[in-house]
Amino acid sequence: MDITQSSLDQFLTESKPYTNNGKLASYIPELLKANQDALGIYIIDVNGKEMYAGDIETRFTIQSVSKVVTLIYALEAYGDEVFTRIGVEQTADAFNSIIKLETRNNGKPLNPLINAGAIATTSFIVEKEGKNGFDNLSNFLRKLAKNDSIDVNQSVYESEQRTGDTNRALAYFQKGQRTFSASVDDVLEAYFKTCSHEVQVKDLANIARVIANNGFDPDTGVRYFSERNARMTKAIMSTCGMYDSSGEFALMVGIPSKSGVGGGIMSVVPGEYGIGIIGPALDEKGNSAAGVALLSKLSQEYGLSIFR
Amino acid sequence: MDITQSSLDQFLTESKPYTNNGKLASYIPELLKANQDALGIYIIDVNGKEMYAGDIETRFTIQSVSKVVTLIYALEAYGDEVFTRIGVEQTADAFNSIIKLETRNNGKPLNPLINAGAIATTSFIVEKEGKNGFDNLSNFLRKLAKNDSIDVNQSVYESEQRTGDTNRALAYFQKGQRTFSASVDDVLEAYFKTCSHEVQVKDLANIARVIANNGFDPDTGVRYFSERNARMTKAIMSTCGMYDSSGEFALMVGIPSKSGVGGGIMSVVPGEYGIGIIGPALDEKGNSAAGVALLSKLSQEYGLSIFR
Amino acid sequence: MDITQSSLDQFLTESKPYTNNGKLASYIPELLKANQDALGIYIIDVNGKEMYAGDIETRFTIQSVSKVVTLIYALEAYGDEVFTRIGVEQTADAFNSIIKLETRNNGKPLNPLINAGAIATTSFIVEKEGKNGFDNLSNFLRKLAKNDSIDVNQSVYESEQRTGDTNRALAYFQKGQRTFSASVDDVLEAYFKTCSHEVQVKDLANIARVIANNGFDPDTGVRYFSERNARMTKAIMSTCGMYDSSGEFALMVGIPSKSGVGGGIMSVVPGEYGIGIIGPALDEKGNSAAGVALLSKLSQEYGLSIFR
Amino acid sequence: MDITQSSLDQFLTESKPYTNNGKLASYIPELLKANQDALGIYIIDVNGKEMYAGDIETRFTIQSVSKVVTLIYALEAYGDEVFTRIGVEQTADAFNSIIKLETRNNGKPLNPLINAGAIATTSFIVEKEGKNGFDNLSNFLRKLAKNDSIDVNQSVYESEQRTGDTNRALAYFQKGQRTFSASVDDVLEAYFKTCSHEVQVKDLANIARVIANNGFDPDTGVRYFSERNARMTKAIMSTCGMYDSSGEFALMVGIPSKSGVGGGIMSVVPGEYGIGIIGPALDEKGNSAAGVALLSKLSQEYGLSIFR
Repeated sequence: MDITQSSLDQFLTESKPYTNNGKLASYIPELLKANQDALGIYIIDVNGKEMYAGDIETRFTIQSVSKVVTLIYALEAYGDEVFTRIGVEQTADAFNSIIKLETRNNGKPLNPLINAGAIATTSFIVEKEGKNGFDNLSNFLRKLAKNDSIDVNQSVYESEQRTGDTNRALAYFQKGQRTFSASVDDVLEAYFKTCSHEVQVKDLANIARVIANNGFDPDTGVRYFSERNARMTKAIMSTCGMYDSSGEFALMVGIPSKSGVGGGIMSVVPGEYGIGIIGPALDEKGNSAAGVALLSKLSQEYGLSIFR
Repeated sequence: MDITQSSLDQFLTESKPYTNNGKLASYIPELLKANQDALGIYIIDVNGKEMYAGDIETRFTIQSVSKVVTLIYALEAYGDEVFTRIGVEQTADAFNSIIKLETRNNGKPLNPLINAGAIATTSFIVEKEGKNGFDNLSNFLRKLAKNDSIDVNQSVYESEQRTGDTNRALAYFQKGQRTFSASVDDVLEAYFKTCSHEVQVKDLANIARVIANNGFDPDTGVRYFSERNARMTKAIMSTCGMYDSSGEFALMVGIPSKSGVGGGIMSVVPGEYGIGIIGPALDEKGNSAAGVALLSKLSQEYGLSIFR
Repeated sequence: MDITQSSLDQFLTESKPYTNNGKLASYIPELLKANQDALGIYIIDVNGKEMYAGDIETRFTIQSVSKVVTLIYALEAYGDEVFTRIGVEQTADAFNSIIKLETRNNGKPLNPLINAGAIATTSFIVEKEGKNGFDNLSNFLRKLAKNDSIDVNQSVYESEQRTGDTNRALAYFQKGQRTFSASVDDVLEAYFKTCSHEVQVKDLANIARVIANNGFDPDTGVRYFSERNARMTKAIMSTCGMYDSSGEFALMVGIPSKSGVGGGIMSVVPGEYGIGIIGPALDEKGNSAAGVALLSKLSQEYGLSIFR
Repeated sequence: MDITQSSLDQFLTESKPYTNNGKLASYIPELLKANQDALGIYIIDVNGKEMYAGDIETRFTIQSVSKVVTLIYALEAYGDEVFTRIGVEQTADAFNSIIKLETRNNGKPLNPLINAGAIATTSFIVEKEGKNGFDNLSNFLRKLAKNDSIDVNQSVYESEQRTGDTNRALAYFQKGQRTFSASVDDVLEAYFKTCSHEVQVKDLANIARVIANNGFDPDTGVRYFSERNARMTKAIMSTCGMYDSSGEFALMVGIPSKSGVGGGIMSVVPGEYGIGIIGPALDEKGNSAAGVALLSKLSQEYGLSIFR
């Protein structure tokens, strides 16, 4: 059954109060400038039909949602060699935990959607492509989003650099374990810049739509990545995409998704929809509080769970 | 595309050598009596059509595969109250780890498919139903399997009791944290007995078929459990069913499954198939080595991954 | 310089208010019956001269202070074989932590003065001496204390048995790791009974005096244990005796000591004094709040630190 | 009883074979250039009488032995404020563990003699004294050692900088937790330089002798640090000085000591001796294998344990 505009509007209205349950990310000043009450959703079905509701003009940094793009880029360019450096298991630990790095696998991060793992994936790209690595990745992101005007928010990037000491610790720890050989500064520059891309919900919906189409863009006839990589990406999003509430989200929503501390969520309903959401007020796990509520309503009403 | 007998036979032949990659579980002598080379598969589609290959007559104890049945039983009888006692997050730690019990949630186990979580679910049933709890659960298992002759293997049960000190530690630790109030002895009796049900692959296929049908048995017209509980069960199987290689299994196979140290795997292809597998030689994670290989081939050939 | 009665009285008065900084142990009802305001100290010098102040008539269960006696008994009877089962390193984890058992040494507890380690030491004695093990240990304790009337407080013992689930978890975990072979019930019976000996401060002072004399009792001319075992005991008390504030205690007080949740502290000033203290109000680490304050004043005034 | 030259020679000869039980530290190439068979000891009693045996001319970098000097310097300059930033508890974890940083106290390192803690102490000095911090600390070290010619081994320092990624991770993690505000680069420059001081055993013996004299140098009449700081230092050396075998060393040797991966050990027999040892072959815990053997023999023969 197709999602109707009226129910979309209704669910947005019903989910709006959940913005009060969350808090803006505060580790860099830029994120605190966001509108805590904002909530917007953009849906594009696989055939290109668009729907939306709420604050769809809001600009926000992509943050950890970009980890999905980084993963796909690395998988498509270098195949399963990526998994020599990163695992694919979920952890119930907090998103920036070092414990797991240390106690398992000689410093190999558990999965590519946690900070340590995305840093490892980025190190892989930087080692292979040098300084061009970030540009290539950034171009790939713009293509998937069908939006050439997407760019890095410079002041967010600079703030990330200034305050990114825990990420630096994650990178140096891996370097100390010889997980990668690239320069930590180069890796973190690419990593922080990737996180600092400024997007709108439509951009996330477009990226998600390509994943929902298993890597193929029906509009242009271009295959951006293989079915196999699409499938693996959806699997990892399902098990690891929502920080340490990934399991609960799988139960209650069941849509492969990735969230970011900027308040964005990118969700993929395989074969059906690409979805982008913004709601900067985060719950205690770091996911958009109202965004999760909205996805939950949509999933239940329209049976969108992949576990159906 | 329907699975063909010839490809099933071929995949079984190709997977057979993987039995050499694994080892029999050795913590109780009974498990060491299993035939290390055995490999068998039974598939029942949602309409009741049956296919099989290999050692389908082998009898084995259900072990941790039963955790799925225990979960469904508890959810169906008591609803989401179950989740006051057990989380739904995956852990990258070993299957009988105490660490996670201790460091999170005041002793609340992470999910119902690890030992600590299944002990917690069983404690819930025992508190509600007393000594009848196990009988009710056992009858439920027989009904789902459509096999009244399934029974507890008494010598395995007694061995579990004799050697179950780590499980006893898990139970006492939770009791010490006041996760449950039932007697540890009663809980472990029910838990060990549940693990000791002796089954064949057809039994697992039948149980899996009901889950693939979202709780409804088309043969008898009986609904054994709700769609919602079926969906949640498939989600938990997908994220937590294969011990600490659940993530890798999701990527490579993508079929909601649960394994046991007896060598059994129960797999659910939603809306399509229930699958039972036996292959007693276990890989280092505790999953049937050849069983995983066989499922991987089936999933790739027929596109059975739920992340497709 | 000898401790004077007037300064002892003064320090007791000054330390009394610290009883308000602590709380009674509450895990068994019997401990909550203690007088939260009590504070008493008994000092016996190596020549037998006695001094005391405050509530010296208070009876209390010896609890973890007994771990020192258990250690000495096992060392004297079986020598360094004891250390095949227990380490001698300190942990900064909480006193009943399971983490350390699991992550190091295949279940070998870190040191004999934490619960897991004392359970291991007791298992050693029980394996060697069977049911007589506890009686022998209890007699040893009475001899060191020069008090034949010391006995187990039956209602405390029964409470320990009833509520000892975390200790049971510690024992079963070790048994599961094959750290010991004795019956968990037998080991815990001996362990809980040992903890439940009812003593007075004079008893602790007498035991401590023998340790201060390196195992020799000058009154009777009996050597109860070797100099080497005395020295090792003092070393372990210094590094591990005060739960996870052992390091701070070493800095600020520097007197080899062991505390118990009954509010007792037994302190050894080598070659000089045996000291027993009671102060049932415990600080957040589980040590007698006023007792620590009193020892600190004594140590500073009279230079009793072994690190002088 | 005074140590005799003949027994010193004998113990050195007997301990020499233990050099075969160890390995040179290999994390920087410079350390691999050391003579694996070397063993030397220098003893200075509190009155200034000197004894020595073996390879006393060997030059080596002070490495972690310097952590004691850093601690004393910080305590003497800033008092107990140091402990707002560093704990004083021992850990049974490996010497460069991040786990303990993360799970306790919001990133506050457990004690000043592990890498994380020494980095924190250094950060304290750098914040207070800026770029002069290192020079002041270095001068303090030279004064205690009575040797103006001690200097930083530049190639070791540069190697430490090049390979110090795990230490960088430790520093950035603390910075991320806001344990300190100084620049990580400045802190690590001072930290790595401090570790790279090139010394001989006589230098360590001289430093240890001042500690044995509680901060007072009888030759010059200068008090370098307070009795209280000397006492605290000896307490911390006793509980935390020998990595994760500190507990066993306390039992078997009982002399407050600190080891370094350069093969040095500095030992303090309070009121009696300052001892410096070199033996570059390290046991699995990171302590000089032959050095520990030699100290053990000395301690047993002459009753040097502080737990006597």
